[in-house]
Amino acid sequence: MSRSRLTAEREAELYEAVLDLLREVGYDALTMDAVAARTRSSKATLYRQWRSKPELVARALRHDKPVDVGDIDTGTLRGDFHAMLLRTDNCQMERDSALMRGLAQAIHTNPDLHQALRELLIEPEKTGMNTLLRRAVERGEISADNPALKFVLHMVVGAFVSRQLIDDRDPDRDFLTQYLDAVVLPALGV
Amino acid sequence: MSRSRLTAEREAELYEAVLDLLREVGYDALTMDAVAARTRSSKATLYRQWRSKPELVARALRHDKPVDVGDIDTGTLRGDFHAMLLRTDNCQMERDSALMRGLAQAIHTNPDLHQALRELLIEPEKTGMNTLLRRAVERGEISADNPALKFVLHMVVGAFVSRQLIDDRDPDRDFLTQYLDAVVLPALGV
Repeated sequence: MSRSRLTAEREAELYEAVLDLLREVGYDALTMDAVAARTRSSKATLYRQWRSKPELVARALRHDKPVDVGDIDTGTLRGDFHAMLLRTDNCQMERDSALMRGLAQAIHTNPDLHQALRELLIEPEKTGMNTLLRRAVERGEISADNPALKFVLHMVVGAFVSRQLIDDRDPDRDFLTQYLDAVVLPALGV
Repeated sequence: MSRSRLTAEREAELYEAVLDLLREVGYDALTMDAVAARTRSSKATLYRQWRSKPELVARALRHDKPVDVGDIDTGTLRGDFHAMLLRTDNCQMERDSALMRGLAQAIHTNPDLHQALRELLIEPEKTGMNTLLRRAVERGEISADNPALKFVLHMVVGAFVSRQLIDDRDPDRDFLTQYLDAVVLPALGV
């Protein structure tokens, strides 16, 4: 049987169901049985299309389109950061937070999954962030040798992840806006 | 059978084995069978002593002694932060990082576990950190209304967690020292 037996719509539906399950129960508890039940498909179909659970999850992660922040250009770094937050609604932040939580242990033991998560969430953020920061340096807003430059993504991702751990709440736009103004911009000397 | 059947040493040994397994395989994959095998005890003994896996894990977490940073007092905030890092070696940081990773999904669905993790890692850090910051405010190093004050723990825990996610490396003393000097102290205006 060939991969072309599923329509693109059906494939997208399956991937979305896999990501939903990941957010709900985490990687370990996500079984092919659960995916089959959720999507009303047979396990035989799933295994024909994707050979294993890691392959299915990695493909589901890659199928989700990351947001590109590199094309934001408001003229100031503060404006760019705020525009970046306005692009992602609280619902999407909750979903990303749940996804990271569900994968935290699994990516440590499964390099393919880690690579897929990096491609989906980390690398696009890194590239987009570097574009915004490079422009801020060129405008003279940030000194090129500011030691905080290499930690901007750690600050942002860290705020995202620690919000849950410390305050038992999902990260949202209000929290991240305050954090950007109180921490990230002052550390960069803006 | 009563709880007193195990010696304190044997109980400590069991808790240590539970935490080791948590770090290695995560909460979902940690089974009473695995604990029994690792500690050469019978499952009956484990269930007699602790009624369930969540109870055993929560007790193991509570048994580990958290470090108290509130009694560090070098005279400057920078000195206090650096002394704080010197107290925890890289090996312990790796262990804490593995523990958080192993519990990330489980604490979301299990309030008892979340409470135990808060008591073990989050609350002592919060209390100790607040003591250091209060002294820095009293010395006039930080303005009492600095908006970054309420985010110090998010910065530190965030650096800890994001190091793994972004750079695929365990947090260590060198990384956290650079982060404190480049991010945390400048954000606080120190």
